Amino acid sequence: MTMEFEFEELIEQIQNHYENRELSKIKEILSEINPADIAAILEELPENQRLLFFRLLSKEDAADTFVELDGDTQEALIHGISDTELREVLDELYLDDAVDIIEEMPATLVKRILKNTDRETRKAINILLKYPDDSAGSIMTPEFVDLKKDMTVEDAFKRIRRTGVDKETVYTCYVTDASRHLLGVTTVKDLLLHDYDDSIEDFMETNVIYLNTLDDQELAAQYFDKYNFLALPVVDMEERLVGIITIDDALDVIQEENTEDIQKMNAMLPTEKTYLKTTVFETWKSRFPWLLLLMVSATFTGSIITGFEDKLATLTILTAFIPMLMDTGGNSGGQASVTVIRAMSLGEVNFRDYFRVIWKEIRVGLYCGLTLAAVNFLKIWLIDKLAFQNDEITLLIDVAICLTLVVEIVFAKFIGASLPMLAKRIGFDPAVMSSPFITTIVDAVSLLVFFGISSAVIPQLH
Amino acid sequence: MTMEFEFEELIEQIQNHYENRELSKIKEILSEINPADIAAILEELPENQRLLFFRLLSKEDAADTFVELDGDTQEALIHGISDTELREVLDELYLDDAVDIIEEMPATLVKRILKNTDRETRKAINILLKYPDDSAGSIMTPEFVDLKKDMTVEDAFKRIRRTGVDKETVYTCYVTDASRHLLGVTTVKDLLLHDYDDSIEDFMETNVIYLNTLDDQELAAQYFDKYNFLALPVVDMEERLVGIITIDDALDVIQEENTEDIQKMNAMLPTEKTYLKTTVFETWKSRFPWLLLLMVSATFTGSIITGFEDKLATLTILTAFIPMLMDTGGNSGGQASVTVIRAMSLGEVNFRDYFRVIWKEIRVGLYCGLTLAAVNFLKIWLIDKLAFQNDEITLLIDVAICLTLVVEIVFAKFIGASLPMLAKRIGFDPAVMSSPFITTIVDAVSLLVFFGISSAVIPQLH
Repeated sequence: MTMEFEFEELIEQIQNHYENRELSKIKEILSEINPADIAAILEELPENQRLLFFRLLSKEDAADTFVELDGDTQEALIHGISDTELREVLDELYLDDAVDIIEEMPATLVKRILKNTDRETRKAINILLKYPDDSAGSIMTPEFVDLKKDMTVEDAFKRIRRTGVDKETVYTCYVTDASRHLLGVTTVKDLLLHDYDDSIEDFMETNVIYLNTLDDQELAAQYFDKYNFLALPVVDMEERLVGIITIDDALDVIQEENTEDIQKMNAMLPTEKTYLKTTVFETWKSRFPWLLLLMVSATFTGSIITGFEDKLATLTILTAFIPMLMDTGGNSGGQASVTVIRAMSLGEVNFRDYFRVIWKEIRVGLYCGLTLAAVNFLKIWLIDKLAFQNDEITLLIDVAICLTLVVEIVFAKFIGASLPMLAKRIGFDPAVMSSPFITTIVDAVSLLVFFGISSAVIPQLH
Repeated sequence: MTMEFEFEELIEQIQNHYENRELSKIKEILSEINPADIAAILEELPENQRLLFFRLLSKEDAADTFVELDGDTQEALIHGISDTELREVLDELYLDDAVDIIEEMPATLVKRILKNTDRETRKAINILLKYPDDSAGSIMTPEFVDLKKDMTVEDAFKRIRRTGVDKETVYTCYVTDASRHLLGVTTVKDLLLHDYDDSIEDFMETNVIYLNTLDDQELAAQYFDKYNFLALPVVDMEERLVGIITIDDALDVIQEENTEDIQKMNAMLPTEKTYLKTTVFETWKSRFPWLLLLMVSATFTGSIITGFEDKLATLTILTAFIPMLMDTGGNSGGQASVTVIRAMSLGEVNFRDYFRVIWKEIRVGLYCGLTLAAVNFLKIWLIDKLAFQNDEITLLIDVAICLTLVVEIVFAKFIGASLPMLAKRIGFDPAVMSSPFITTIVDAVSLLVFFGISSAVIPQLH
């Protein structure tokens, strides 16, 4: 079923059944669609219907749907359901999902949730809650299949059959010793391709790639990207296996980090909710601080113009080229910074590549600068001067403008590539050093270069 | 093993062993690391060593490493190895990976590759090659586990054990009828949790979410993101199951599409290679067209200034505020456009949300505008006028500037959110309608608003 086009139709059907009090038909519809879609539908429905329909779901669907809902809807549902219902949902949840939900809830609800879990689960949840935000520990689940090295394939399958139902994934199995140190890893595919009496020790992979609980979740994302794993083990300070990260959580991290990078690259503070669920006030809060900072910074650019006011007054035509020079500088710098930031967050570029990157950007800047200068030279001469007969324009003015273009573009590429790398080097987030910030710097420098070159080259300004 | 810090050390070790002609030690090192890392190491080594070390790899590692190499290195290796070696690598490859490689190769090498595959594989490759770029068909593999509905769990496991070795994933199994129509789907986890004599028909999931071969690969990425699948079935025009997309390929698509969006959002044509592997010339080619277009467009902004030149000459102080107004307008519009583009590519926002989005952005714009205007009003009055004693500044000038800020920010938010949505509606890529493009429009409008308001409000300009 391709949901794209059927979504609104489904909601309409459900509304019709609701008006005709045909709850059994709604139950049937919901039982046939994926929990992610049920969640999307519930969120679109009026609040009084949500709880009603949620109660129509099978126990398993209810839990799977619950995980997919946004925090506000989850909160409202928890308020509405009984302790017994809550316990049923919680029983079905994987621990990492339970932790994600708890992290979003107000303290009173957290209490009620924890009260309705058994002691062991509560203990495990409390451990997970302690890992720092954005750490590998915060996105892992302690529910994985662990095997011993002297098990046979048959033993392993028995163990998976016995314990697998509660594990988020059974496909990657970890072999540990008595003190929970990681000895090796194997997959259900490998198990299936070996004989029942083969010993796991004989074919398990012993060079295991793993993370530490305190590693950044971004590193987890990079590993999944690079190694094509379905799950990645996480060890604690004593190198004991304490959890695994599954690819679905890594995918969420990847998308989250991408969105965050894109927001920072464009002068916004990151928001956690989806666009339509972020309130106007929250959106405003994420946007005005950078706008304000950049506005104040742009004042310096203004004062450069003020300092040159007298000369601009004698040759006002120069003012007309300021927007073009500023925009081109900003765009050139933005291209470089965004490219370098992206390459760094994909793990393609590190600080050790600094000089390689700068040398490349300077050459690219030179080529771009010469291309643009050539076109601009002809355009000013043929269109502005000859076609529109603007007599103020002289050959030297044209030369000054085009020379400025080349210098500012090379500078923009240099600064655009440098700042993100230097920022990362000293521990800042490189994504902040992108277009808007670079633009502000390049603007000021471009004007200084423009006024400097003009003063030197154009006789009227001497 | 965390590779991050050990990478350069490993390369040094290998170089030392190479100088001492200890190839067996190199073989040992390579056998212990992940093929993705072997590929990264090979790419860093001098060309004459690559083939030598590639030949040290086990058959399986050789194929897995080969897939991870960049096109140029793959090409060089194919030139260096014998037909027998080539056949061994090709035998180990999954079909979708083989197709990816072939798509990058020059025609002569494609011939040699196809010559070294058996007839059936060649036929399958040729079918895959025909799907349009960026379609679901182009990233799928025809190698999946298919079951029949009257099979028992035991039958299913037998079938997986017999045919699984060549399948990219065995974890999701598809149940088809005699004419290859998709009846249901089940997973190895489900199989493991059922008794050996249970019939698949009784527990398979019959509401299967699938793609069509011609669907955009971006839709595949969205489905993986939303539904947490490990694989997604792809059907042809006659609704017959022809292949599956696995999550590792979906992840590649997600990262590719993210990079492409980020490039387009920042006035660049997408490049396919990683940053350090893109040549200066290729980088230039991806960057100068938009720079050029935006430079020429910025000329209109310049001519607005030219049209207002006389009035600017009577009150030159106004010129000093042009950079601030232009930058703030551009940044505000960029924030809106980038947010909306990202929300659309995550599938959070559709055209049916148009008025909701615009209404939200107008309010956010109003709030941001008022905040910035308030700060700016005080800043101009207290700092520029009182502290720096700039007597040219009057209350009405201050009012004109701040009024411009509010109007331009609201307009920037409106146009920034509108254009990407409208672009998508008429079939264009919304990512192109982002900051740099919006900036150019907002710049022109901001100046018109500024000059309009100034002329109306400030007596000297009447």
